[in-house]
Amino acid sequence: MAAASLTGARMIVAEPQLLDTPSLVVDEALLRRNIAAMQALAREAGVNLRPHMKTHKTPEIARLQIEAGAVGITCAKVGEAEVMVDEGGVEDVLLAYPTIGEPKIRRLLALMERAKITVALDSREAAAALSDAMVAEARGLDIYVEVNTGQNRAGAIAGDEAMALALDLARLPGLRLTGIMTHEGQANTAPPETIEAIALDAGQTLVATAERIRAHGIALDHVSVGSTPASRYTPGVAGITEMRPGTYVFNDTTAFRYGHNGPDACAARFVVTVISRPAPDRAVIDAGSKTLALDKSHGHPGHGYIVGHPAAEIVRLSEEHGVVNLPPEDQAAFQVGDTFEVIPNHVCPALNLMDELLIVRDGQIVDTWRIAARGKVR
Amino acid sequence: MAAASLTGARMIVAEPQLLDTPSLVVDEALLRRNIAAMQALAREAGVNLRPHMKTHKTPEIARLQIEAGAVGITCAKVGEAEVMVDEGGVEDVLLAYPTIGEPKIRRLLALMERAKITVALDSREAAAALSDAMVAEARGLDIYVEVNTGQNRAGAIAGDEAMALALDLARLPGLRLTGIMTHEGQANTAPPETIEAIALDAGQTLVATAERIRAHGIALDHVSVGSTPASRYTPGVAGITEMRPGTYVFNDTTAFRYGHNGPDACAARFVVTVISRPAPDRAVIDAGSKTLALDKSHGHPGHGYIVGHPAAEIVRLSEEHGVVNLPPEDQAAFQVGDTFEVIPNHVCPALNLMDELLIVRDGQIVDTWRIAARGKVR
Repeated sequence: MAAASLTGARMIVAEPQLLDTPSLVVDEALLRRNIAAMQALAREAGVNLRPHMKTHKTPEIARLQIEAGAVGITCAKVGEAEVMVDEGGVEDVLLAYPTIGEPKIRRLLALMERAKITVALDSREAAAALSDAMVAEARGLDIYVEVNTGQNRAGAIAGDEAMALALDLARLPGLRLTGIMTHEGQANTAPPETIEAIALDAGQTLVATAERIRAHGIALDHVSVGSTPASRYTPGVAGITEMRPGTYVFNDTTAFRYGHNGPDACAARFVVTVISRPAPDRAVIDAGSKTLALDKSHGHPGHGYIVGHPAAEIVRLSEEHGVVNLPPEDQAAFQVGDTFEVIPNHVCPALNLMDELLIVRDGQIVDTWRIAARGKVR
Repeated sequence: MAAASLTGARMIVAEPQLLDTPSLVVDEALLRRNIAAMQALAREAGVNLRPHMKTHKTPEIARLQIEAGAVGITCAKVGEAEVMVDEGGVEDVLLAYPTIGEPKIRRLLALMERAKITVALDSREAAAALSDAMVAEARGLDIYVEVNTGQNRAGAIAGDEAMALALDLARLPGLRLTGIMTHEGQANTAPPETIEAIALDAGQTLVATAERIRAHGIALDHVSVGSTPASRYTPGVAGITEMRPGTYVFNDTTAFRYGHNGPDACAARFVVTVISRPAPDRAVIDAGSKTLALDKSHGHPGHGYIVGHPAAEIVRLSEEHGVVNLPPEDQAAFQVGDTFEVIPNHVCPALNLMDELLIVRDGQIVDTWRIAARGKVR
């Protein structure tokens, strides 16, 4: 984004000085606009939208996504799915993460009584344990195979390895192989001009792997990709059936990198207060790593963007202190007690640090939503 | 620490495979030993110990610190102090952070009914607002002036500037200037061989500033320093009266740097499970940045130390994935479903991501303590 739009960006809260800070605020109109825009992208690409709830962790927002047309929700951990089903009324969940270990499998079985659950995994060991549990309970579980299309985190390598794994898993009793998935996260950190090519390559690689599995008589219904930055590209590949972006509901400074979404598309901000002015060129805000998280941005320097003050760089975070370098033109505007909005670098882990978010309509706080799946690491 | 001690380190949980993971476990005996050791350091230095609760955020642990001889507790935010007073029975709190803004000052006034509170600050603006509030309520508040002895985060610069601020604040009605404090955090990131000199210099600088303020007839009772790595040095400076270390209750991989505390002094660990083995030299554990936090260590490579496996480096974290590079000798030991203990790089923000900790006695889980002040950013 050009510096001009960073300079002209507006705060969403009319009277931030009345808030106890730091507080997480979400503009309802921007949130709904972001949800509608991604649903439109899915519709244009002709794929199902199954948003990852890691960004919002909030039952009310899952409801908005479903109402807008999402076919279900993506979670990582069983504890997140429990919240989305029990508090968000979600009826269809993909756990895009292996469910491993006796305590979790017990919880998974209980959750399957209340919603349709699919589990993605990438190992024979994880599949065998799930198969044993399903057989013992006379149940059936839908599974996806996770495929590595270049991120090199988890997943069976696309091609021979993924096909061999899929064929083995399809033979296990109690499991039904219904899809394959990838997270094309390698697109997100590559140079912006390369994202389209990387995303398309990941999508094509995944579809080719699906075709090879289908050649063995397995009817894979779902070929699933995920990532907000790649969401304009990968889902459009012929043969992709499902997309799982997360960050788009709020956006963050990392989105600035791609030119589609600037600050005025960022629905979630932290209202912060200047608590110290120890030097003419230094202010300290009451949001440190315990509020903004330490994630670097690929779209903006420092540890977040102070709305309307692009040159005031948050250069250092300790747990409760955000140290801001002030250029001469900003030095008068940052006095002790002044309040600002900060857009975080990576909104998902920052939101995970908070217990609730304040809903803003036309500048006023109109509601408080509990981030009910915050901290559900299990 | 020599690699030998990292190799020989032992796990604290006897049957980690029975736990739902990731879980935070704390060895009770190690915790008590660490608390006693720091109390002994304070006694030898002849200073009061007022531990910072940012590391544990847990009322039960504050009680252990007070029972061992701590004169009170240090907090940053009012919300933390509310928990420590109401749930931990703490009667004397230093808020080592400016209390700014009408909502917080109202909560501070309420809290002052239930405990002795002192507030540290570094600006005339923050002091004026507190003075006005105290006068309006016919109350009196003890304050410290925060002094910058080289960390260059917050604080009035030691010497002329800090003295001028102290004299101004001492004249404000409703406030009683009873002390000055510094956080000599610059010692923690400097080369280990320089820590003693940097810590001593910070302590001497603070004492010299105290003497200059006293020369104006102000009886400063408290000259307060804080930092676990510097705790063997700064409190010993003649004229220092109080120390505020935090991390020592648990220790973390950053402590390895200083040679006093290795893994066997680390009371808090995360029990984690291998959830993927996508390549011979790669394992993925179920603890990412949502569990271990992103903080770098100054004492160990990667994103944490896997107990007993010093060469298995956690090279990359995403929110739910910890990617581990496995050297040949570790490749057989990391199978899908296997459990390990991980000591985090910086235990304070990692603990802040969890809701509870499991207390371990002789290898068995004997209790669950709620991290009641987790997420209290206000």
